[in-house]
Amino acid sequence: MRSAVDLNCDLGESFGAWSMGADEAVLGQVSSANVACGFHAGDPRVMHGTVQAALARGVAVGAHPSLPDLQGFGRRVMHISPQEAYDLVLYQTGALAAFCHAQGGRLRHVKPHGALYNMAARDAALAAAIAHAVRDFDSSLVLFGLAGSELVRAGRAAGLEVANEVFADRTYQRDGSLTARAQPNAVIHSVEDALAQVEGMLVEGRVSAVDGTRVAVEPDTICVHGDQPGAVEFARELRALLAKLGVTVRAPSPST
Amino acid sequence: MRSAVDLNCDLGESFGAWSMGADEAVLGQVSSANVACGFHAGDPRVMHGTVQAALARGVAVGAHPSLPDLQGFGRRVMHISPQEAYDLVLYQTGALAAFCHAQGGRLRHVKPHGALYNMAARDAALAAAIAHAVRDFDSSLVLFGLAGSELVRAGRAAGLEVANEVFADRTYQRDGSLTARAQPNAVIHSVEDALAQVEGMLVEGRVSAVDGTRVAVEPDTICVHGDQPGAVEFARELRALLAKLGVTVRAPSPST
Amino acid sequence: MRSAVDLNCDLGESFGAWSMGADEAVLGQVSSANVACGFHAGDPRVMHGTVQAALARGVAVGAHPSLPDLQGFGRRVMHISPQEAYDLVLYQTGALAAFCHAQGGRLRHVKPHGALYNMAARDAALAAAIAHAVRDFDSSLVLFGLAGSELVRAGRAAGLEVANEVFADRTYQRDGSLTARAQPNAVIHSVEDALAQVEGMLVEGRVSAVDGTRVAVEPDTICVHGDQPGAVEFARELRALLAKLGVTVRAPSPST
Amino acid sequence: MRSAVDLNCDLGESFGAWSMGADEAVLGQVSSANVACGFHAGDPRVMHGTVQAALARGVAVGAHPSLPDLQGFGRRVMHISPQEAYDLVLYQTGALAAFCHAQGGRLRHVKPHGALYNMAARDAALAAAIAHAVRDFDSSLVLFGLAGSELVRAGRAAGLEVANEVFADRTYQRDGSLTARAQPNAVIHSVEDALAQVEGMLVEGRVSAVDGTRVAVEPDTICVHGDQPGAVEFARELRALLAKLGVTVRAPSPST
Repeated sequence: MRSAVDLNCDLGESFGAWSMGADEAVLGQVSSANVACGFHAGDPRVMHGTVQAALARGVAVGAHPSLPDLQGFGRRVMHISPQEAYDLVLYQTGALAAFCHAQGGRLRHVKPHGALYNMAARDAALAAAIAHAVRDFDSSLVLFGLAGSELVRAGRAAGLEVANEVFADRTYQRDGSLTARAQPNAVIHSVEDALAQVEGMLVEGRVSAVDGTRVAVEPDTICVHGDQPGAVEFARELRALLAKLGVTVRAPSPST
Repeated sequence: MRSAVDLNCDLGESFGAWSMGADEAVLGQVSSANVACGFHAGDPRVMHGTVQAALARGVAVGAHPSLPDLQGFGRRVMHISPQEAYDLVLYQTGALAAFCHAQGGRLRHVKPHGALYNMAARDAALAAAIAHAVRDFDSSLVLFGLAGSELVRAGRAAGLEVANEVFADRTYQRDGSLTARAQPNAVIHSVEDALAQVEGMLVEGRVSAVDGTRVAVEPDTICVHGDQPGAVEFARELRALLAKLGVTVRAPSPST
Repeated sequence: MRSAVDLNCDLGESFGAWSMGADEAVLGQVSSANVACGFHAGDPRVMHGTVQAALARGVAVGAHPSLPDLQGFGRRVMHISPQEAYDLVLYQTGALAAFCHAQGGRLRHVKPHGALYNMAARDAALAAAIAHAVRDFDSSLVLFGLAGSELVRAGRAAGLEVANEVFADRTYQRDGSLTARAQPNAVIHSVEDALAQVEGMLVEGRVSAVDGTRVAVEPDTICVHGDQPGAVEFARELRALLAKLGVTVRAPSPST
Repeated sequence: MRSAVDLNCDLGESFGAWSMGADEAVLGQVSSANVACGFHAGDPRVMHGTVQAALARGVAVGAHPSLPDLQGFGRRVMHISPQEAYDLVLYQTGALAAFCHAQGGRLRHVKPHGALYNMAARDAALAAAIAHAVRDFDSSLVLFGLAGSELVRAGRAAGLEVANEVFADRTYQRDGSLTARAQPNAVIHSVEDALAQVEGMLVEGRVSAVDGTRVAVEPDTICVHGDQPGAVEFARELRALLAKLGVTVRAPSPST
């Protein structure tokens, strides 16, 4: 049984005149914020304000780098080379770190966004490139990736502290991957079922795959959605569960 | 008479499939490279390669942040607020610094590009915002600005080391500003005249304005163009002049 | 006293994952829709859907071309040449017209957006370039511009049908220009005052400037905002006023 | 033996301050120009100038729509839906057609660019969406696609005139597809071999695949590269071959 877990949420996803998410409300619930870096959302002004709000709340700030696809919100797969992935991640991570640094804070982690996250979960070469970009920039950063994925493996191989990310409201396959969103049973709609899934992960270190198999997972950080109706309410219920289990909510500690 | 001066050049101005400039040749002539940061030129891959080439040559790397205008190459005036300028400069400077840092080097200076440079030369509020962004990111950075301009003043006021930039091939007005490019006599086409102008700046600390007035200038760094025919040849002649005068070519030293 | 007037509204201002405006509700109130063309808002998918919705409602579709500034929503002044304005307007107008055409409809008007609209109201060369782009593309299009502005003049000079645009909720200067938004008295917050201003324009062809002068205006089309709280409600009250005055709401007819 | 064939070339691939290609020289050799529409290259000013130059030479103007990827020059595969493909092609085709129309010319064809071209050659749903966009915009346009590909099939099914495109300097697989560029034998470097391949296509309607199989092809249009050393010289030799064979060079005629 774990004594602590991180709650992370994607934040700073507004852009220019367009608002998205309920960042202020979500910041009260999470321990880590993944902040958009301008390639799928988040212009420099939004990044500035988001970092400011997160630091003010004591929430750990992470970079949330993406494929360059503002119109597609970084959700469309693009075939990029590992070298392109390295450069994209380094650029965006440096840009976001500058806002932390200028405000007297520091960047704590990196979590790839959207299609890049999914691609890096399966593609070892892409995962290695991303891990190397993070390490070359700041080897004390924590790399967030899908629990048990190639990205987590690549982070460890690069000598980085990693955080295995799990999902309360997504179903799993027997190999530990998420059920694709295109599948009808990809999402868990019942709050009770979602909370039960988290409890199983924390207490037993296991999750039931859609075929009934019990799969081992290391739930270092739980993804909390910030842009959906009921998101803040769900986060509150999740925190109540963690309190009941005696599990502390806190951001991963970088290796020292 | 100065004992040392910096030669700086804008580099890394390719983008995607498009090449610009003769970066390798120019790197052999200058002591400081102003590297495009993606907003007017220079995608992440180009930034990576440019920083690598500059560090390999021992050339000091600086950020060359711009207004967000890829099509206009950052040369079109945009009315942005000081806060927008602060955020743009911080974003781009952080992104470029990441490439330096990942390669074991460090960022040495910041020089705004194109229209942003010209606007910051005259607009005190914009200049202050840019200087604050640079200082908040790293107070050991040197801020490059038009000699005697608002940007240089703002840099000093912010406690930054500054570098007054002068031009060999541009004519000056009696207030120390450059003659606007729209004017017929804005550019000095004769190599001899350009070299003579530099010599006067270095030896006497003065330049002849178009109306004949002798204007005081502090030539901390001389702009060398990299994207024009004859640019590398001119840089060689300039270095020969400096050698004759006993003036060492070296990048400005950050205050310590 | 006019027998008919147009009500126009900016629509299709969503982009990618970001929504803006209450387009469906507004379409029920207006006779002309100015549809964003991708440079300040409105990606191809949004344009497709917006044109479809407007055509289904019998609302006249116009192009709403902008400066290329997605982050600034086309509201930041950029210094562009008349030739650049011509090309920007032609590009965006053609793109939007394609969505009309593909759906069996046709483009009816062009109204420049944001900073481009304001710049074209005052700058005769820019206004002429925009008018020529519209005319060269389709000389039966109606050009919308600030009532009495350079843009309206340029449209007439180019042989185009024009629509003088007036504002219910903005105050006027004695020269017929709008009070700049930076001024404290720029906006009319009282619904009664706004309706009274429209009534004066329609009945007397005059509006009271902030200094009390009565200024002549030709109210061919009234701007209805779509992205503000109370916008749809205000549009309803405006239509009730027009009904009371016996003024028909309809889109301008292109000259034939 | 064919009596006529089209020679097409990608043109207008400059962007902002960056130049690419030798458009003027190439325009003297080809009968059809595929003009970039702003998504991988070609800003509105470049489009204006390219259309002007092509019309002046009597070269048929086509739209060359791309995935939205300026940095990757439209060469990186992106997973887009058929609806997204439809909207992208319609937007870009309309924008380019406006420049033709404003200059008294007309758009003649559409050829998808880069990764979109390759994806549409294999993916029937994507191909159908592109064909429908072209047809819905203007059913007299000719759709260019890889000879024998899904795109050509989709064009025919949509009632469009199509042009099967063949390559002089690329090798073929036994199914009529091009050998992937990643393969060592993808490109034919010998001018003699390239000309011989064209001659075989024109005279026998067949090409030798890399495994020796003789594959049927319909060479309606031959792709001439414009951005490579020796491109113009190769085009001249190709035209000499066509003259020797008695094959006229002319753009495809839209069905009437």
